[in-house]
Amino acid sequence: MLLEALSRELPADRMVTDPDVLQSLSSDEAEWAPVGPAAVAVRARSEAEVAAVVRIAADLGTPIVPRGAGTGLSGGANAVDGCVILDLSRMTAIREVDVDNLTCVVEPGVVNNDLKAAVAEHGLWYPPDPASAPWSTIGGNTATNAGGLCCLKYGVTRDYVLGLRAVVGGPAGYGTTAWLGRRTTKGVAGYDIAGLMVGSEGTLGVITEITLRLRPAVRGVPRTVVGAFSQLVDAGRAVALVTRLGLTPSALELLDRTCLAAVNEWKNLGIEADAAVLLLARIDTPGEAGHLEATAMAEAFERAGALWAAQSTDDIEAEALFDARRLAYPALERLGPVLTEDICVPRSALPTMLAAIERIAAGHRVRIATIAHAGDGNLHPLMLTEPGDDDARRRSQQAFEEMIDSAIELGGTVTAEHGVGLLKRRGLVAELDPASLTLQRAIKGALDPLDLFNPGKVL
Amino acid sequence: MLLEALSRELPADRMVTDPDVLQSLSSDEAEWAPVGPAAVAVRARSEAEVAAVVRIAADLGTPIVPRGAGTGLSGGANAVDGCVILDLSRMTAIREVDVDNLTCVVEPGVVNNDLKAAVAEHGLWYPPDPASAPWSTIGGNTATNAGGLCCLKYGVTRDYVLGLRAVVGGPAGYGTTAWLGRRTTKGVAGYDIAGLMVGSEGTLGVITEITLRLRPAVRGVPRTVVGAFSQLVDAGRAVALVTRLGLTPSALELLDRTCLAAVNEWKNLGIEADAAVLLLARIDTPGEAGHLEATAMAEAFERAGALWAAQSTDDIEAEALFDARRLAYPALERLGPVLTEDICVPRSALPTMLAAIERIAAGHRVRIATIAHAGDGNLHPLMLTEPGDDDARRRSQQAFEEMIDSAIELGGTVTAEHGVGLLKRRGLVAELDPASLTLQRAIKGALDPLDLFNPGKVL
Repeated sequence: MLLEALSRELPADRMVTDPDVLQSLSSDEAEWAPVGPAAVAVRARSEAEVAAVVRIAADLGTPIVPRGAGTGLSGGANAVDGCVILDLSRMTAIREVDVDNLTCVVEPGVVNNDLKAAVAEHGLWYPPDPASAPWSTIGGNTATNAGGLCCLKYGVTRDYVLGLRAVVGGPAGYGTTAWLGRRTTKGVAGYDIAGLMVGSEGTLGVITEITLRLRPAVRGVPRTVVGAFSQLVDAGRAVALVTRLGLTPSALELLDRTCLAAVNEWKNLGIEADAAVLLLARIDTPGEAGHLEATAMAEAFERAGALWAAQSTDDIEAEALFDARRLAYPALERLGPVLTEDICVPRSALPTMLAAIERIAAGHRVRIATIAHAGDGNLHPLMLTEPGDDDARRRSQQAFEEMIDSAIELGGTVTAEHGVGLLKRRGLVAELDPASLTLQRAIKGALDPLDLFNPGKVL
Repeated sequence: MLLEALSRELPADRMVTDPDVLQSLSSDEAEWAPVGPAAVAVRARSEAEVAAVVRIAADLGTPIVPRGAGTGLSGGANAVDGCVILDLSRMTAIREVDVDNLTCVVEPGVVNNDLKAAVAEHGLWYPPDPASAPWSTIGGNTATNAGGLCCLKYGVTRDYVLGLRAVVGGPAGYGTTAWLGRRTTKGVAGYDIAGLMVGSEGTLGVITEITLRLRPAVRGVPRTVVGAFSQLVDAGRAVALVTRLGLTPSALELLDRTCLAAVNEWKNLGIEADAAVLLLARIDTPGEAGHLEATAMAEAFERAGALWAAQSTDDIEAEALFDARRLAYPALERLGPVLTEDICVPRSALPTMLAAIERIAAGHRVRIATIAHAGDGNLHPLMLTEPGDDDARRRSQQAFEEMIDSAIELGGTVTAEHGVGLLKRRGLVAELDPASLTLQRAIKGALDPLDLFNPGKVL
């Protein structure tokens, strides 16, 4: 009945029922998150098609699971039983780049790096840069409030979303299109529903268009400072010191030897890891002030116990290091299933959290490689297993939950930027004040009373 | 019955029933916004007292109107019939300044400038700087998502609120205290309810504590560029040009001769206004890069038709000009009732909007003085009347509504930073997509089903 109803309203090439293709659209990159069998996937090409799918699904009580590129790491885009998967990755129009107002209007399927390239032609910059930027879409980035490297200085996706269009449900009627937000830099006309949609992981409606704030491109070549440490905890201390000194790098990343080696083996970047862990800082303050900041950064690394710290005088080498950071996840994934953590702690707790990770890895006999947006206190311990090793898988999952509990104990959060999806639902309940959860459920109930938008995710 | 119930739970000195004092607590600074007779005001000193008031009010079906310093300009804090006014201005504790994590935790009654001074002692900075900063409270700033001068570069209140405590109602039970948000720089654990509370003008609950992000203090002395223009529209063109050139001033303010003269007359700042309108730019980029930016700014002013443009080499003069900007509103208020507009348009529409203001002023025979956070496209045309001139009052109100309509036509918003309160309710409905309004009402209904939190405001 669902397929018939969809066929009546949509061109045939929008629908996917082939089992293999359907399966490939049924999950994101979260290891071991449950996946239900989907009824059908629709590759929508317009807001009208999205609205038709939502209307039909609501009539039939069919769950709707929206997805972009499927690069998520929490299972947020995983199919649930009998759902229609709403694939938005074919809606790739960049509708407008407004150089006079530093804004753009895009469809949800536009790939992050494609948008960066398009606005760069106008001397503009869209900062949010999740490591998935070569593949992930602005719609997915918005639904998960994606972060990245440069959000340390330039903010996360929410800071760039001025407004959006969405197909919503509930009191407006399922299948209604709504324009939420504004086009101006400031605005307080009513509740910030656009902001509420950002990071709601498709549970409140389906985003069909996004109006983004842009920045002028940064001028000049950034400086890079690299510090090598013999111990994770020393690197954590260096990060805490950088914060206390009021330095403002545009990125401050940590990666350990396991990550570096995996990337090097794959891409042959020619990086020699003579230390247990590297800190990479990027400073884009122009001129002499940038030089002073880079020098202060290198000194801070040394004071915290670095084996060595140096300002990179070689742009190619610096780029290779940042490439290594970006490629760490796919490089490790080549070696076997990787379970990805996404905790965030107050920056001063970084050394303690890094020590906890080492303790948890040893306690559960799990091999953990750590990459981190260290300047934000955002850690991605990656649990590496052999394919098919069920015991290792169980131990990884135990370590995953134990790291969540440690982060909460330190005043942190269970997810900094990947989202709750399916993997962090227990953590969410452990982290949040019960009254906050009650309010969140009330909002979900008010905006999606039939529980059709990505049910079972987040809450 | 209300008074009895309150007396049972609160110390006597918390309650205000004296008619004169009660009246002074019954309105903010919005001219001609309706004010209902309040039953009582409570000067709460703790979250427990706020919770007691909300619980009692809910039991009796009494509306609750929270207020801070009462510096609002939209009537958001105005009493409604039979309400209890919940005055939070005595909750002034700065609970924590965390230099390692660049955060602080404050009670809602802390005055903005007091917080700035307290964190400055630690080398830190709380940027949001509404012109009311010497008087307005962080609680009020949060409830209205206050902006100011430097939000052009550093963002508005929402960008600094990481988390908050609030006394909420509805599904959690009226009088429940809830911790919403996080202490970390990043976080996507559940819906952004802290963000939703920001700017909700007390209609979803009563904020009792705020956790704020801070920045390191800016180093060095900022540069000031002043441009004098013979016509408002030329100044608007200069602002559009500055945006297009990718310059990033930390403030870009406009004030016209009427404003300058009023301040000068009051404070004797020694400013000579030889032009119809001034643009004031502040540039805090350090070193040579700041010098280049200031030079480019002055050139942009000249290209747009400035009578003259100059980098200020005299810090005292520059400070006097920015003081004039900050004091413009109270200076004009001394002359009679002032109705304050707060529209925001896309920056490229600034010249058109400024022309529309002049046309509307002439059409309605209203004297309008204009100050503006011009770099944001945020205009505050101030309508000046003689006390007791009812016809002038009516004409001002007509001009007020007509400016709102012009802003909407230009893709703008009816309120950039003052809030909807009572004065912008028609404008809100005119601006928003009906589906957005429906969702907003659904959220209000879900979180405050008894409609007790600041009823009749915003929606």
